[in-house]
Amino acid sequence: MADQWQEAYDFAVQVARAAGAVIRKAGEEEIKVQTKSCTVDLVTKTDERVEKIIIGSLKEQFGEGTHCFIGEESVSKGQPCILTDKPTWIIDPVDGTTNFVHGFPFVAVSIAFAVNKEIEFGVVYSCMEDKMYKARKGQGAFCDDEPIQVSDVKDIHKSIIICEHGTDRSPETVQKIFSTQKKILCIPVHGLRGSGTAATNMCLVACGAVEAFFEIGIHCWDIAAGAVIVREAGGLLLDVDGGPFDVMSRRMVSGNNMVIVNRIIKEIEIFDTVRDDAPIVKK
Amino acid sequence: MADQWQEAYDFAVQVARAAGAVIRKAGEEEIKVQTKSCTVDLVTKTDERVEKIIIGSLKEQFGEGTHCFIGEESVSKGQPCILTDKPTWIIDPVDGTTNFVHGFPFVAVSIAFAVNKEIEFGVVYSCMEDKMYKARKGQGAFCDDEPIQVSDVKDIHKSIIICEHGTDRSPETVQKIFSTQKKILCIPVHGLRGSGTAATNMCLVACGAVEAFFEIGIHCWDIAAGAVIVREAGGLLLDVDGGPFDVMSRRMVSGNNMVIVNRIIKEIEIFDTVRDDAPIVKK
Repeated sequence: MADQWQEAYDFAVQVARAAGAVIRKAGEEEIKVQTKSCTVDLVTKTDERVEKIIIGSLKEQFGEGTHCFIGEESVSKGQPCILTDKPTWIIDPVDGTTNFVHGFPFVAVSIAFAVNKEIEFGVVYSCMEDKMYKARKGQGAFCDDEPIQVSDVKDIHKSIIICEHGTDRSPETVQKIFSTQKKILCIPVHGLRGSGTAATNMCLVACGAVEAFFEIGIHCWDIAAGAVIVREAGGLLLDVDGGPFDVMSRRMVSGNNMVIVNRIIKEIEIFDTVRDDAPIVKK
Repeated sequence: MADQWQEAYDFAVQVARAAGAVIRKAGEEEIKVQTKSCTVDLVTKTDERVEKIIIGSLKEQFGEGTHCFIGEESVSKGQPCILTDKPTWIIDPVDGTTNFVHGFPFVAVSIAFAVNKEIEFGVVYSCMEDKMYKARKGQGAFCDDEPIQVSDVKDIHKSIIICEHGTDRSPETVQKIFSTQKKILCIPVHGLRGSGTAATNMCLVACGAVEAFFEIGIHCWDIAAGAVIVREAGGLLLDVDGGPFDVMSRRMVSGNNMVIVNRIIKEIEIFDTVRDDAPIVKK
């Protein structure tokens, strides 16, 4: 039973690398942008194409109907976003679409696989940097096959924290985001950063480049793969209120240790979001 | 006369690449940090060592006494920071020391050369990414020998703007920085980013990955090389109040075109800084 999902894990790495190559190539061609919910939340033809390639490859390899799929593009077209006990692939074909459209150098393919609602493995391919991050439960985390580990910094004053701005531009949300950032900067910490992709941000925690990353408003496909990579690199995940991490809750703090994570949680001003698995309200 | 400084330009590229290799190697070894003015403004032994290598190589090549030097580490040890009409090298051995110490993947060597107070050429080597940006006045800008160009986006709503937090943590400054960032985000723009190094940020403007970058508090060695790279890539530089750019003023907006730059300038809340060439006050 120990190696039941090894083949799937290896295959996910291959698929992520192939998908990343498609993204890189598309980046060199002209990018036609279609607006999704607002100008901030971009989606390109590449997203749709890459998701089809990934899901198509996985279905071909593992058989139609045996596995479930949660993909950013499928969900945005009305597919359900419910995590059951069945083997389920959680996929973000292009994490960092805004970066991709602009040629900003952080774009990731994120593929996670969950069984009994627990993430069995995760693969994040940062395709512009050509870095392959991966982790399987109980087997450690790797970047390009080298083991990675979270930072050992315990002093918050010596930390770098990743804070993103998200895509919600409502005044209350923006107010809380900046208020939180300001309080964290003035702890003080060494600095605030943000790559513009949640999947890459979690890998930056996992490899020790930053001490913590938190965000409210992210989706399960942004963080499912990163979650197991952070844990296997020795890090931890919590809800922004300090409770247990829930991949469908759209709230997450990831960090190198409890001291840093608890200090950050003290400063986070929480705002409301709708869970990924909330019933769809017909418009 | 047209090629008077070609040899110096070519040599600067070589020196930047060699310096970057030293930085990368040091990054793999243990990093011992000494605190400069506060925990935010880090300086490592690597800074000092790399600056000595760069200035040493240039003096050896061009003869002691023929050129002037302004280097971050030399100035912090009391050397003058005055730009005269003489041929002058303006050097930041490690731009992004905080990134370097943490292993965050943006660290740059910045070397500029000015004659008659005008920047003749600039070289920025982003050594973790292994990207060599360079430009000589009137000859275009390049990344790894490929010509680069600023973005052609004129619609501010489709822009990414780089906003850094700087190193000053006084409440008034922090308040103005976050207030500015919030106003820019809510124009709205596609997003805010920041690499943590001014030299790299300017190259991100030059290659079209972002539309603009502004900062108050940067030093001449952070931006002198980037300034000519941005200009030669078709971009422009101004003071944060819309006046002419002054490399010693510690204030700068760089961007792809006047429409974007003027829109950003409207939102910038200016705070005071001491010019790089202000008389040194003995403590």
